[in-house]
Amino acid sequence: MTYCVAMKLDSGMVFASDSRTNAGIDNISKFGKMRVFTRVGQRVIVTLSAGNLSITQSALNLLEQRARTNPDALGIWNAISLYDIAGLLGEAMREVKNRDGEFLRQNNIDASASFIVGGQIAGETQRLFQVYSEGNFIEASLETPYFQIGEIKYGKPIIDRILTPATDLTEATQCTLVSFDSTMRSNVSVGLPIDLLVYRNDSLSVDIQQRIEDGDPYFSQLATRWSEGLRGVFVNLPKPDWLTPKI
Amino acid sequence: MTYCVAMKLDSGMVFASDSRTNAGIDNISKFGKMRVFTRVGQRVIVTLSAGNLSITQSALNLLEQRARTNPDALGIWNAISLYDIAGLLGEAMREVKNRDGEFLRQNNIDASASFIVGGQIAGETQRLFQVYSEGNFIEASLETPYFQIGEIKYGKPIIDRILTPATDLTEATQCTLVSFDSTMRSNVSVGLPIDLLVYRNDSLSVDIQQRIEDGDPYFSQLATRWSEGLRGVFVNLPKPDWLTPKI
Repeated sequence: MTYCVAMKLDSGMVFASDSRTNAGIDNISKFGKMRVFTRVGQRVIVTLSAGNLSITQSALNLLEQRARTNPDALGIWNAISLYDIAGLLGEAMREVKNRDGEFLRQNNIDASASFIVGGQIAGETQRLFQVYSEGNFIEASLETPYFQIGEIKYGKPIIDRILTPATDLTEATQCTLVSFDSTMRSNVSVGLPIDLLVYRNDSLSVDIQQRIEDGDPYFSQLATRWSEGLRGVFVNLPKPDWLTPKI
Repeated sequence: MTYCVAMKLDSGMVFASDSRTNAGIDNISKFGKMRVFTRVGQRVIVTLSAGNLSITQSALNLLEQRARTNPDALGIWNAISLYDIAGLLGEAMREVKNRDGEFLRQNNIDASASFIVGGQIAGETQRLFQVYSEGNFIEASLETPYFQIGEIKYGKPIIDRILTPATDLTEATQCTLVSFDSTMRSNVSVGLPIDLLVYRNDSLSVDIQQRIEDGDPYFSQLATRWSEGLRGVFVNLPKPDWLTPKI
């Protein structure tokens, strides 16, 4: 399983992905799910992927290889819009599924896969897209300034409570890590390390890129403080008057 | 969608279910999903149901009707063990699915359904079971003292953080309601009213039964205090030193 989240805020963007891949619970390995395509001053493009690893890896490899072998065609390094990049990623995924999908289905292997892709290309504002398994895609809006893929539900409530487009990048990063903590507590197949990338709006460079490994002191402290804080809030919640006299 | 949760603690049990049923997002109605079979001093049996409403209702109706028309056969009013009740419920569900399942499948209607059933029968300890859509079932243990069915993920992290078998019934009730609040915030198809039942171990009677309606002052206060409390904890979380100098 996988958990990835990306946020588009007034001040910039936060991207994060876990690194656990499993083909059955007895075959768990670590694979980064974040890819970064960057030329300082020109473009920062970040992809996060979930689902069948062979499908998402192949789709990204096709994109990279074609941009190298046929640099004049529309590709990741010359597209003038992130909208086009999202479309290219969807098409590449469809192509890989056309090639491999039938063989996977024959063995009941799930071929579904999805991407989050976002960042900024010079001449455009920062943008964020989610590419579905069918290759179609949507863009984040002011009302929904974030996307999640993979094991999304455990970590969603905290984001819904905290995040607005005005949230600053520090709080958004903290919110992201708390969301990962909640997810990892409830689903053992999502695990450290977490790849984290923070992008300041209009910087056109990767501002922070951090890998949070097992035993990371900041992440441990954050998780402990959050857990203790929640318990503190919980024990001070009001008690229902219809309950206390009888129980 | 539905959300139901039940907890088995040293001091008793807590059962809760929402009341929203939808057959498509344009056809939402309220149906209680909790049924209580009780004879004071003899038995308290509580069922919570999720999934296809026609399947779960029919299965319960079969159980009730057979206990009435054939009171000597093994049934809800004479079984000496909750284990047998869980088995009866699973069998009744299989029977209804045999009758209706093929017709539902013809129109791609999901026939899956599940139950939580728990309580106490005189002569036994309190017990809690989850009956799967296939009719097989499992019993709650010390390690996992609770079951959820329906839209389970949004409300799971808070239970995992708070609940142990030693949690008292007041805290377990608060935890249940916070879990519902988290679920309802993230999934509009889970909604008030909430049916809540609290059972004290060995009382062999329903100790608290409460319906929490829209605008319930206690539930509103709990949700507000929880939300404000979380924000309070959040804003006091430590900031990562690799982030603050740059962002």
